[in-house]
Amino acid sequence: MIKAGIVGATGYTGVELLRLLAKHPHVEVAVITSRAEAGIKVADIYPNLRGHIDLAFVEPDVAQLSALDVVFFATPHGVAQSMMPALMKSDTRIIDLSADFRIRDVPLWEKWYHQAHAAPDLVAQAVYGLPEVNRAAIKNAKLIACPGCYPTATQLGLIPLLENNLVDPTRLIANAASGASGAGRQAKIDNLLMEISDSFKAYGVSGHRHLPEIEQGLRDVQPKGAAPVNLTFVPHLLPIIRGIHATLYANLLDVNSVPDLQSLYEQRYANEPFVDVLPAGELPQTRSVKGSNVCRISVLRPQSRDTVVVLSVIDNLTKGASGQAVQNMNIMFGFDEKAGLDVVALLP
Amino acid sequence: MIKAGIVGATGYTGVELLRLLAKHPHVEVAVITSRAEAGIKVADIYPNLRGHIDLAFVEPDVAQLSALDVVFFATPHGVAQSMMPALMKSDTRIIDLSADFRIRDVPLWEKWYHQAHAAPDLVAQAVYGLPEVNRAAIKNAKLIACPGCYPTATQLGLIPLLENNLVDPTRLIANAASGASGAGRQAKIDNLLMEISDSFKAYGVSGHRHLPEIEQGLRDVQPKGAAPVNLTFVPHLLPIIRGIHATLYANLLDVNSVPDLQSLYEQRYANEPFVDVLPAGELPQTRSVKGSNVCRISVLRPQSRDTVVVLSVIDNLTKGASGQAVQNMNIMFGFDEKAGLDVVALLP
Amino acid sequence: MIKAGIVGATGYTGVELLRLLAKHPHVEVAVITSRAEAGIKVADIYPNLRGHIDLAFVEPDVAQLSALDVVFFATPHGVAQSMMPALMKSDTRIIDLSADFRIRDVPLWEKWYHQAHAAPDLVAQAVYGLPEVNRAAIKNAKLIACPGCYPTATQLGLIPLLENNLVDPTRLIANAASGASGAGRQAKIDNLLMEISDSFKAYGVSGHRHLPEIEQGLRDVQPKGAAPVNLTFVPHLLPIIRGIHATLYANLLDVNSVPDLQSLYEQRYANEPFVDVLPAGELPQTRSVKGSNVCRISVLRPQSRDTVVVLSVIDNLTKGASGQAVQNMNIMFGFDEKAGLDVVALLP
Amino acid sequence: MIKAGIVGATGYTGVELLRLLAKHPHVEVAVITSRAEAGIKVADIYPNLRGHIDLAFVEPDVAQLSALDVVFFATPHGVAQSMMPALMKSDTRIIDLSADFRIRDVPLWEKWYHQAHAAPDLVAQAVYGLPEVNRAAIKNAKLIACPGCYPTATQLGLIPLLENNLVDPTRLIANAASGASGAGRQAKIDNLLMEISDSFKAYGVSGHRHLPEIEQGLRDVQPKGAAPVNLTFVPHLLPIIRGIHATLYANLLDVNSVPDLQSLYEQRYANEPFVDVLPAGELPQTRSVKGSNVCRISVLRPQSRDTVVVLSVIDNLTKGASGQAVQNMNIMFGFDEKAGLDVVALLP
Repeated sequence: MIKAGIVGATGYTGVELLRLLAKHPHVEVAVITSRAEAGIKVADIYPNLRGHIDLAFVEPDVAQLSALDVVFFATPHGVAQSMMPALMKSDTRIIDLSADFRIRDVPLWEKWYHQAHAAPDLVAQAVYGLPEVNRAAIKNAKLIACPGCYPTATQLGLIPLLENNLVDPTRLIANAASGASGAGRQAKIDNLLMEISDSFKAYGVSGHRHLPEIEQGLRDVQPKGAAPVNLTFVPHLLPIIRGIHATLYANLLDVNSVPDLQSLYEQRYANEPFVDVLPAGELPQTRSVKGSNVCRISVLRPQSRDTVVVLSVIDNLTKGASGQAVQNMNIMFGFDEKAGLDVVALLP
Repeated sequence: MIKAGIVGATGYTGVELLRLLAKHPHVEVAVITSRAEAGIKVADIYPNLRGHIDLAFVEPDVAQLSALDVVFFATPHGVAQSMMPALMKSDTRIIDLSADFRIRDVPLWEKWYHQAHAAPDLVAQAVYGLPEVNRAAIKNAKLIACPGCYPTATQLGLIPLLENNLVDPTRLIANAASGASGAGRQAKIDNLLMEISDSFKAYGVSGHRHLPEIEQGLRDVQPKGAAPVNLTFVPHLLPIIRGIHATLYANLLDVNSVPDLQSLYEQRYANEPFVDVLPAGELPQTRSVKGSNVCRISVLRPQSRDTVVVLSVIDNLTKGASGQAVQNMNIMFGFDEKAGLDVVALLP
Repeated sequence: MIKAGIVGATGYTGVELLRLLAKHPHVEVAVITSRAEAGIKVADIYPNLRGHIDLAFVEPDVAQLSALDVVFFATPHGVAQSMMPALMKSDTRIIDLSADFRIRDVPLWEKWYHQAHAAPDLVAQAVYGLPEVNRAAIKNAKLIACPGCYPTATQLGLIPLLENNLVDPTRLIANAASGASGAGRQAKIDNLLMEISDSFKAYGVSGHRHLPEIEQGLRDVQPKGAAPVNLTFVPHLLPIIRGIHATLYANLLDVNSVPDLQSLYEQRYANEPFVDVLPAGELPQTRSVKGSNVCRISVLRPQSRDTVVVLSVIDNLTKGASGQAVQNMNIMFGFDEKAGLDVVALLP
Repeated sequence: MIKAGIVGATGYTGVELLRLLAKHPHVEVAVITSRAEAGIKVADIYPNLRGHIDLAFVEPDVAQLSALDVVFFATPHGVAQSMMPALMKSDTRIIDLSADFRIRDVPLWEKWYHQAHAAPDLVAQAVYGLPEVNRAAIKNAKLIACPGCYPTATQLGLIPLLENNLVDPTRLIANAASGASGAGRQAKIDNLLMEISDSFKAYGVSGHRHLPEIEQGLRDVQPKGAAPVNLTFVPHLLPIIRGIHATLYANLLDVNSVPDLQSLYEQRYANEPFVDVLPAGELPQTRSVKGSNVCRISVLRPQSRDTVVVLSVIDNLTKGASGQAVQNMNIMFGFDEKAGLDVVALLP
């Protein structure tokens, strides 16, 4: 059993980590921190944890965290980077679910996040925690930058096309929709049930922070010489709690020489424990992954025209955040990659 | 006061027509038909109509309908065309909310609807009832083919770009999402609350019947010589009752010569009573049109790249069906175009 | 046309007032106030009002309000009573949607609202604005205390039984459920979609402020000599936007002498424009009154035992707040009681 | 590993059984039957099971079922009783989730279910599978009649009061609300999302089939000499997928001699693995048990009056059906009672 800590465990990715780790066969959650809720039992805030997690929140303390095997950051951006210089000196391995270390280009990060980076020297040490691309590097990483929710769904959907240079990388479109838990557990009028239930809207169309992350990730998998990826990304807000659905559009470079896309996707992900390419003709639904770490994908070519449509669904809190973090931990510590994650999605 | 009839008033577009016509200052609903529910009072099925509509359903009867000023068809496709030859001999004016007369190319209609057209000779007499394009022809029409819900939201969103030949018409994308009432009031497991609430999915990706209707409508507004519109259309199912949100993507033909798109849209719709171009920076939400006949539109150019994004929302039962039918009726009979439709959307 | 003002128009009862008054034939909304949003156009906050209400919020000003024919308070408790001494000196008539003047027993009010009453001398001048009980007094009232949402649904459901002394008044039960808009438009984690959608819970069981209001109202209609009403009131939170459903339980005093309850209810409300007693065998649904001012009621005696069950539904924002306020205004100014309120509920 | 079969596995209790058994450490699901879907893979209907259950449905066959260790019936009433005479001759142990063997009074069953019972002689052999009351009998049972969802929530809530004869048993009230999955996976207009979302209603007020089951169960725990339980039961339909919330009302027999109700409940359920009495002051929410087998209960005495209010929540598909069935199986086969059921509810 390894000992784990969670910094900032009061948010939705925090409680999701606790849900998953509470039943993980190789992990004991030893410390959960929250400045605001120090002294409060986590089960008093999250009644689903009653009888499963008996811990109370404590103030974050570097010495205490440094003594653990692994520390998860489930914090808003800016927090992890402020504690990282101290933590990196310990033997603790760190899995950061926030955006702090996802973007290698520090000025680009600073432009999108409107603040100076507090640990720019450590950015190069972070491994981007998308196992389907970086499994080998994750194994030995000291610091994992866990991918965002939209970036996970979008990259897994487009990687097979880009790796094989089949589509025009300069005019990709990611039309994505997220459940409201993606907005975090913050008191905002915009996310009241009376404001967003029974409605639907786009947001952040002029620029969403996940755009540079997605473009970086997609460019990483392109073959040499390909024009760099350029993406139009439009997120939408769904009146549901969990789930991301990405509808991806790409134009074929050569319609006269298109491989069997269904086979291409099935082969690319044949050995991936958490990517499920649906049989031809089936389309994914977000409910089919509710509470599970699976990404389900369909690839289509409507009307046999030159536009490929890829549909990709995940649970934003699981494969899009905390489940993926646990998957990274399993890889890092040599556990079965499915340990603690082999759950059936809750349906209906 | 004119006398109106509704054929097939048990479905959702039927009850929406009744909701609107019950308070219309110039219309008396005289006949509502339903084979299945003949003899039943409409208020027994739709309790919101108690105290407003006292009619019972009757079997459809051509003679009775022929004596009315206007007859609405709120029926599945195939029904209106079977009764149309007889009705067209009367003086009654007809507004068909179904798909029967929307597509001028009869073989194309037959291909998509998998049946022989029962009144092919009458198709040419039908006027496509999109007032923002065809107001003059609607005024004198005998038979209106009311546009579908997705086609209304999509066409209103793309028309200004296509009329001015600003974008590549061969690679348009319409990523649209509809409330579940678009599926009609039919007993299907797929539309149970337990199957579709708290979830989201695409459907009909390989081919949806609204695709040829949208392409026809968009080609109609293109200037001569332009390459004909080619659209990738992906509909999605929202876990809400009412509302369509279309997210439209088009590539600018010449990024060095782009007019002010905000002004272009505002001017195009300046005199339209039911199209509201939002101020720059505001994005539409489906709830802002719930129960109203308004289409709200935003136009953006993210990151100043070459892809234009247009967002267009309507209530699928109102501007996407019954409200638009009433708007057509108002034009046909010389009423104020907003008569019976000047309602505030229900928010929250 | 009379001139109306709304104090505190940024909340949900405020926007609902604006929705109703915007189309009222005899009212012009002249002033809407909000300290927090002064200078902002109401349509910028509530996009459904675009094209209907062009006003901007202003700071509340007694002199300006005093010049109006009627002023509505759509404020949290405590606000109306602080401005009332000044306003009562003017000729303006006042309709207070808050709880400030509902309870005649000032110490009781102070106990439940945890503050000293700022205008105790004016409480006796307020008329409790439940038209089905107090229509005559409302007609000439200077100051109306508009009933709360739960109290409206509960009182209308129990009045016929209590007026006729048919049930044990000391053990009444009101099990009620409200849509989330009843909680107001405030930034609270508890009312986020992710916290309350797809869930259900009771709240305020140990004591809810509507309890003393309901008990006062029910005692007022009891015949002399009856034991005073004693109510157990348990409110619940529904994951819907609008709607109150009250399930009321009362024990018959004499099972051997029970009148026809269906007739009793039908006769009691025969002349009420906004109370609809459903036919025997039909049960009310909150959606049947969505956006309308109607209260729909069913009365049953399950298994012919000695417990009567009454079901009563309203829209909490309409008959439970702003619609009832407009109904009061119509009575006060001699308008048709249904003016501006004769709308069909939005269904589906 | 024991071998299990599920008869009628296409419904919601069937898929919930599969979700739970797929990860059960001691059970292999060997057979799943469905006449309508024979030949179809279960994962084609329930995409959450992809990768977890690879079985296809087969026609039900008594010989095949008789060879299993345990057979679950997840069928509509009438099915289990028709197959039971044959199955009872085998060594298979049977857990019937339907209503067929819940009511010991056969004529009473026939009155409420409107059909002749097909195996009246076997009714007396069935053990009512509420572990909190019948654990010893369950251990050795051949045939378990698994309790209904409303009966589980209601009985667990009222048992401590009735066992101790603290309340008037003749005027109990159970005001309960259920998620829509309780209605089963059947194609009915009444359960479409567009009919029941964003709404709330009571149903079955004049008589629901769970009433005689609840009354039987509650009478079983009353001390000798107590007046038999008489219950008013009003179920309501929630616009959510899973969850039951029962709000229970009982009048204290002697207000001058009331024990500490909080302690009473805590002690009664101290050793129950799936009943969680909340700390005083906390109220249960259905989301806190979503997907889990726990029943959470609060007991209150509002205003210190003579009416006790008990709040009881379960997941209708888990503790209200399939989870309870697995709990029974665990007891019957001597497994840890929490085996396969020790999951954290999905929140948010």
